[in-house]
Amino acid sequence: MTQVAIVVHSGYGHTLRMAQSVAKGAAEAAVVHTVEIDADGNVPDGAWETLRAADAIVFGSPTYMGSVSWQFKKFADASSKPWFGQAWKDKLAAGFTNSASMNGDKHSTLHYFMTLAMQHSMLWVGTGLMSSNSKAATREDVNYVASFSGAMAATPSDAGVDEMHAGDLETARLFGLRVAQQAARLTTG
Amino acid sequence: MTQVAIVVHSGYGHTLRMAQSVAKGAAEAAVVHTVEIDADGNVPDGAWETLRAADAIVFGSPTYMGSVSWQFKKFADASSKPWFGQAWKDKLAAGFTNSASMNGDKHSTLHYFMTLAMQHSMLWVGTGLMSSNSKAATREDVNYVASFSGAMAATPSDAGVDEMHAGDLETARLFGLRVAQQAARLTTG
Amino acid sequence: MTQVAIVVHSGYGHTLRMAQSVAKGAAEAAVVHTVEIDADGNVPDGAWETLRAADAIVFGSPTYMGSVSWQFKKFADASSKPWFGQAWKDKLAAGFTNSASMNGDKHSTLHYFMTLAMQHSMLWVGTGLMSSNSKAATREDVNYVASFSGAMAATPSDAGVDEMHAGDLETARLFGLRVAQQAARLTTG
Amino acid sequence: MTQVAIVVHSGYGHTLRMAQSVAKGAAEAAVVHTVEIDADGNVPDGAWETLRAADAIVFGSPTYMGSVSWQFKKFADASSKPWFGQAWKDKLAAGFTNSASMNGDKHSTLHYFMTLAMQHSMLWVGTGLMSSNSKAATREDVNYVASFSGAMAATPSDAGVDEMHAGDLETARLFGLRVAQQAARLTTG
Repeated sequence: MTQVAIVVHSGYGHTLRMAQSVAKGAAEAAVVHTVEIDADGNVPDGAWETLRAADAIVFGSPTYMGSVSWQFKKFADASSKPWFGQAWKDKLAAGFTNSASMNGDKHSTLHYFMTLAMQHSMLWVGTGLMSSNSKAATREDVNYVASFSGAMAATPSDAGVDEMHAGDLETARLFGLRVAQQAARLTTG
Repeated sequence: MTQVAIVVHSGYGHTLRMAQSVAKGAAEAAVVHTVEIDADGNVPDGAWETLRAADAIVFGSPTYMGSVSWQFKKFADASSKPWFGQAWKDKLAAGFTNSASMNGDKHSTLHYFMTLAMQHSMLWVGTGLMSSNSKAATREDVNYVASFSGAMAATPSDAGVDEMHAGDLETARLFGLRVAQQAARLTTG
Repeated sequence: MTQVAIVVHSGYGHTLRMAQSVAKGAAEAAVVHTVEIDADGNVPDGAWETLRAADAIVFGSPTYMGSVSWQFKKFADASSKPWFGQAWKDKLAAGFTNSASMNGDKHSTLHYFMTLAMQHSMLWVGTGLMSSNSKAATREDVNYVASFSGAMAATPSDAGVDEMHAGDLETARLFGLRVAQQAARLTTG
Repeated sequence: MTQVAIVVHSGYGHTLRMAQSVAKGAAEAAVVHTVEIDADGNVPDGAWETLRAADAIVFGSPTYMGSVSWQFKKFADASSKPWFGQAWKDKLAAGFTNSASMNGDKHSTLHYFMTLAMQHSMLWVGTGLMSSNSKAATREDVNYVASFSGAMAATPSDAGVDEMHAGDLETARLFGLRVAQQAARLTTG
């Protein structure tokens, strides 16, 4: 069965909750493994093997100061080891991010994920979700935050993990499902 | 007195209205000239002289399919003439954009403006406005759309020019004022 | 058999020659169709049908003033019609560019292509080629210009079409082959 | 006198040598302070005060896996403290990077620096140097690597610190001088 790995850093839990929604969606069409990057930028034992065995790797990080957190970047720098041997070549890649603001340079984070994936010779897949942008749109619509390159959530700076927008989490779920479906397309080829 | 030129393409009038707010703000600290790029991507007679005489040039375009409109790009390509002689060197540059969605790749448009400005050896200034992103934030707050690199407006796909968000227009006005103030700093140097 | 469409604008013929190398590589594993965007930014009759029927679409443009040419952008803006119905969803996408300088903001052009592809809900594939960057590297090595997100060629500003670097053209060929192979992977799935 | 601070991380010394060339150029028109980020991503005592007192801050980092090193990013994340109070508002910002390859996504690093600077409400200045890209160009020409948004050096993967290209270092020196001159323009205003 298709294997999807999610590798995520979360500073305060919001991005991790987003990862859980991505995992929920991906689990509808694949086996899902979640690897958490810790506060020092390290991953648990066995994480690199999990990533190596996956058909798709989904990157997740909060957007801090205009890009991924340093902990995620430490993981990305450590990925120079599989990169050197191109161990992730031809796998599918995707990414998601959360920050407090509507835009807040989250696009920068997603394009960094894409740059990283291209160095690894992976294929990239985005949300595949049209944005909700008419006058009738509501904050809880799917892809109201309106991102194509990867999934975005915007959670107010003073909102707890349990106060994330349901629409953003549903967006993350649908995005996870899409990643799994596209990974399946590639693996059954 | 400090001269600020705004060069803008607008497909349906929303970006032009945004330009008017930028102009209103800039006019508080500078003389403002607005150059409109027409539907064929051309500028009126005298436009290049206006730009050459300006202390600051502000780029404006809707975000279409992930970047500036082709009409704006035609103007940018035509700017290879002043670029060749580096006629805009050391001027201040800035940019703004409108699209229907909250994100909708507007960051891509602003970073294109920055790339263009750097080729022209200009200096770049952004909004200088913190974003409004707490739970108490409202859609009409200044910089609710939350951009630092330049000003963004998000106007629903079915909203007329008179239905633009007041907060986005106020953001544009404050951004215009900032551009003029920073241009003045440079010219009185 | 897998269908690869290349849609390209070329100002002076260099990017078109690059497209021919991409086509040559792609033809090793797919049927290739090349659509040329003309000097007014228009495509020939039947072009949209060709693109719709393709399994992969490869974008090609010179880098002018920091991004795609306005002619390519006019094509991209016109693609809002298939975008509206998401007619290109799940197709593979890729891109290439030529400019005079080593860097010269070609990365900006490739990331614009990626942004466009993501709006169309396509999958993205890069060069899959390690760069040649040791002291023993020569200008004619594969991927000496060193791009992952898509293929780059750097042709001196005063070099004719017949003076393009052989290594850059070979890079383009290998890139074309990779696009066709990955498209085949997706279509046989 | 104008104060220019350079804040740099260097993994193997190449980026630090580049910083020294930037400092040499800047010292022709300003007092220069260099802050080194260590292998753990920390800065020495007094560093934040130095940055706060500067008229211009120049960011320097190698490009690792498509963006700044994690150590630089840790510094950037720590800069959320001055960001919160907008302590760097209206200062000038600029950036430089080194990597082994000609392109190698160095543009991504520079655009990250720009994104960071914009969050801090700083002004941005690039190289102001035309690229050397004719057939007669040589590897040791100023801006042969051809970057506008900031200074780039490309040092082969197996080249020592003493084997960096003289042209790249001269590019860095001229870039440093430009930063200092533009900072002076702003401070005498």
